[in-house]
Amino acid sequence: MEMKLAMEKFEKIIEEKRMVDTAITSLHWDLETQAPKKGMELLSGVVGYLSSKSYELATGTALIEAVDTLNDCKNDLEPVRVKMLEEVEREIDKIKKIPAVEYSRYNELTARAQSIWAEAREKSDFKIFEEALREIVEFQRKFVGYRGWEGHPYNTLLDDYEPGMTVEKLDEFFGYLRGELVPFLKRIATEGRELRGDFLERSYPVTEQRELSRELAEYIGFDFDRGIISESAHPFTLNYDRNDVRLTTRYEERCFSSSVFGTIHEGGHGLYEQGIGEEIASTVLGTGTSMGIHESQSRFYENMLGRSKSFWKPLYEGVKSRFDALKDVELDEFYRGINKSEASLIRVEADELTYSLHIMVRYEIEKMLIEGSIEVEDLPRIWNDKMEEYLGIRPETDGEGVLQDVHWSCGLFGYFPSYALGNAYAAQIYNTMVKEIDIEKSLEERNLSVIKEWLGENIHRWGKGKKPAEIIEDISGEELSARYFIEYLKEKYSRIYL
Amino acid sequence: MEMKLAMEKFEKIIEEKRMVDTAITSLHWDLETQAPKKGMELLSGVVGYLSSKSYELATGTALIEAVDTLNDCKNDLEPVRVKMLEEVEREIDKIKKIPAVEYSRYNELTARAQSIWAEAREKSDFKIFEEALREIVEFQRKFVGYRGWEGHPYNTLLDDYEPGMTVEKLDEFFGYLRGELVPFLKRIATEGRELRGDFLERSYPVTEQRELSRELAEYIGFDFDRGIISESAHPFTLNYDRNDVRLTTRYEERCFSSSVFGTIHEGGHGLYEQGIGEEIASTVLGTGTSMGIHESQSRFYENMLGRSKSFWKPLYEGVKSRFDALKDVELDEFYRGINKSEASLIRVEADELTYSLHIMVRYEIEKMLIEGSIEVEDLPRIWNDKMEEYLGIRPETDGEGVLQDVHWSCGLFGYFPSYALGNAYAAQIYNTMVKEIDIEKSLEERNLSVIKEWLGENIHRWGKGKKPAEIIEDISGEELSARYFIEYLKEKYSRIYL
Repeated sequence: MEMKLAMEKFEKIIEEKRMVDTAITSLHWDLETQAPKKGMELLSGVVGYLSSKSYELATGTALIEAVDTLNDCKNDLEPVRVKMLEEVEREIDKIKKIPAVEYSRYNELTARAQSIWAEAREKSDFKIFEEALREIVEFQRKFVGYRGWEGHPYNTLLDDYEPGMTVEKLDEFFGYLRGELVPFLKRIATEGRELRGDFLERSYPVTEQRELSRELAEYIGFDFDRGIISESAHPFTLNYDRNDVRLTTRYEERCFSSSVFGTIHEGGHGLYEQGIGEEIASTVLGTGTSMGIHESQSRFYENMLGRSKSFWKPLYEGVKSRFDALKDVELDEFYRGINKSEASLIRVEADELTYSLHIMVRYEIEKMLIEGSIEVEDLPRIWNDKMEEYLGIRPETDGEGVLQDVHWSCGLFGYFPSYALGNAYAAQIYNTMVKEIDIEKSLEERNLSVIKEWLGENIHRWGKGKKPAEIIEDISGEELSARYFIEYLKEKYSRIYL
Repeated sequence: MEMKLAMEKFEKIIEEKRMVDTAITSLHWDLETQAPKKGMELLSGVVGYLSSKSYELATGTALIEAVDTLNDCKNDLEPVRVKMLEEVEREIDKIKKIPAVEYSRYNELTARAQSIWAEAREKSDFKIFEEALREIVEFQRKFVGYRGWEGHPYNTLLDDYEPGMTVEKLDEFFGYLRGELVPFLKRIATEGRELRGDFLERSYPVTEQRELSRELAEYIGFDFDRGIISESAHPFTLNYDRNDVRLTTRYEERCFSSSVFGTIHEGGHGLYEQGIGEEIASTVLGTGTSMGIHESQSRFYENMLGRSKSFWKPLYEGVKSRFDALKDVELDEFYRGINKSEASLIRVEADELTYSLHIMVRYEIEKMLIEGSIEVEDLPRIWNDKMEEYLGIRPETDGEGVLQDVHWSCGLFGYFPSYALGNAYAAQIYNTMVKEIDIEKSLEERNLSVIKEWLGENIHRWGKGKKPAEIIEDISGEELSARYFIEYLKEKYSRIYL
């Protein structure tokens, strides 16, 4: 009887929190995609206000008492409810040790900081952003202190985005990547053939790009009854629930790849969220299980499918007829062109081969920032040094260096490694899927639904009902390993370049 | 001391309510402009949840006690605070006498009723909507009973949208309009010349229309640092505060007027909200003072300026060069075309001359419905009879008659008269302004800022700090009168048609 009451209370509060959090998501969406410059202050204030309401609900005695009661009778609960309970506990633990006032100030700060960052990036001046970033980093350090940590303070933040991930594992992971990739890159650079890339910078009218983006999203299976595509400076995906999933992309007349692969990438995220099982859709389990698994889905679609020859084979003639820029470009040249590898400064424009090194730079910087061994004012220099060390090129401005990513302005620390983990998950997933499905044949026959269904069955529908480690082990029978990703890259790029 | 405490409490709750209401506004914006079909359920749920929070804040004992305390020491308060207090009381009084259960049942009903109305309109069958409308009217009658009324029960509803407006004044207003307009319309129809309107339905590429809309909004003075334009099925303006004002318009390839005049109209609303005085911007006084004054601003820009020859004189060659559709159309033909008048069935498509008669039909029906002298089931017949009497045409279906407007399904009774009052206010404002500013010359010299400034000084900046009657009397030295509007129409349309 007491359990039933506690469960009712639990569900009522969680539902109320879902309402508040959805309003916050909606305001974030607005702030990122359309709010006028001077309107951001009010909306950021509302985000701050609602965040404090959400915080109150999550840390109020009502919820904590209900959770305690339910914890005492876990054995009598259905397994799915136990998972919900654990997820809620995880979320409560994240914030309950943080004083309410600080939490709300932090939320207001990050809501404001995004436009400060945007201005700094536009003017390519780190000084404009420095103070806000310093405050954010200080909050992050303090929060880790309140929350406690094991092994390394950065582990606490890693765990928020990739449950179970640690500095120890990541150091090994990136060490392996670096050991394999840096020499391979050098070999490509010295021995590799010249590839055409000229056509990618020709003129592609934005109106046509916009139509193509929509078509591609639909082609891979994105459901426009349950989602939209919009535009923003930095593409992202936001999910309200499985019935409302929002992607953004950006259109640049002289950058074909930006909108096309941006859309396929975000589309991969979108398919994950639209594929969440209906039975858990409106519960706390009803979203992607980790950022790394999320990124595996976007990378799988963007790179493993979207940058394969089989993907474009049935589509290329149609695309070619729409853009004058492609009229002298054969499919094979197109395929090699969209896979052209080159050390470059901007992460979101980096190719598949060099991408993980961009992440390594960010991982190492974040780790040091959080442990306090470097300070915010030194970031431009440290950034540039690391770029030179790993990629052999040095940014000349803050805009093409330390200011390029929005993440830190949103308070996302511990998030970047997911991008590299995503590549590794994706390759390991591909390695299993290809044993069951002839992926290339499916692509050539425009049968993308068989791929979406496989991912839906093995990954999407579970939401947070399985942890990332469970997902990858259930699929591949082993732990996450960087091996498949390295093999995939070497095989693909040897074919293209050597 | 007690007063200071009460004032702090008052301001804290009002600020909290402003945060919640802004979130609601933001969700409405999203629902109307972009939310995917299947995502609407969740977002509507969030609106419902937040609305109940807003209601709780407005009717909670904390606020009511603070208001009572402040009322006892009104003499010690600054005048602007007295006005804020009165505004809050007005809002509380609207709902506090209505039993909470009935209020919530009524809100559920109107939430449901909109889709019932939409279905009825689609099928053009009033019977589908009849029962829901009957319930809404019954609630409205009961609510007026709870709230009390003076002179006529409909006065209570009128006062919600146009403070101080009464049936007595409106009867006289519409009586005068009818007496002047109906014979004038007949004269135009029989003696007036034929005008070209063919070119308005030619092809106008949407991309070009979109650019033109933005340019026109900027041209009349809309500040895009503090606002945006988006798209929706029915154009509207939504204000968060003076720094975030959002307009929508709609683009139809074969309807040039729809986007152009839609944008100028909503732009007029937008200038009002952007022009609110900074010192009252974030208080309850920081928005337009009444629906009628609001509509006077949109009509002033749309019709008095936007449909004048002087407005287009400096712009027309540029516009003509952008649209093939206009290449054989001279400025004078263009001017007459955009002012073509014709009795028609649909209010939102009606021209300036016939528009007020559409409103008169709705006013008379609402008045009788609320006083109980007619019943809902008789509406289709009464509607059609009145259309025939005033406009000389009779709808053949419910869809082009009584079902055309969404308002009643939302419970908006007492709102329609604002549309006609707006026209009259606008003409009376013009009549004063033209004594101080050479309006035609300013338009011809592209000097629209002088007009915006005059309106800003005399109307916009005051927000709710002046009641509508104060506004119009301070400007023109007299009460609102339909005379100026009639004079304006007769003069303009005689020149065009006779």
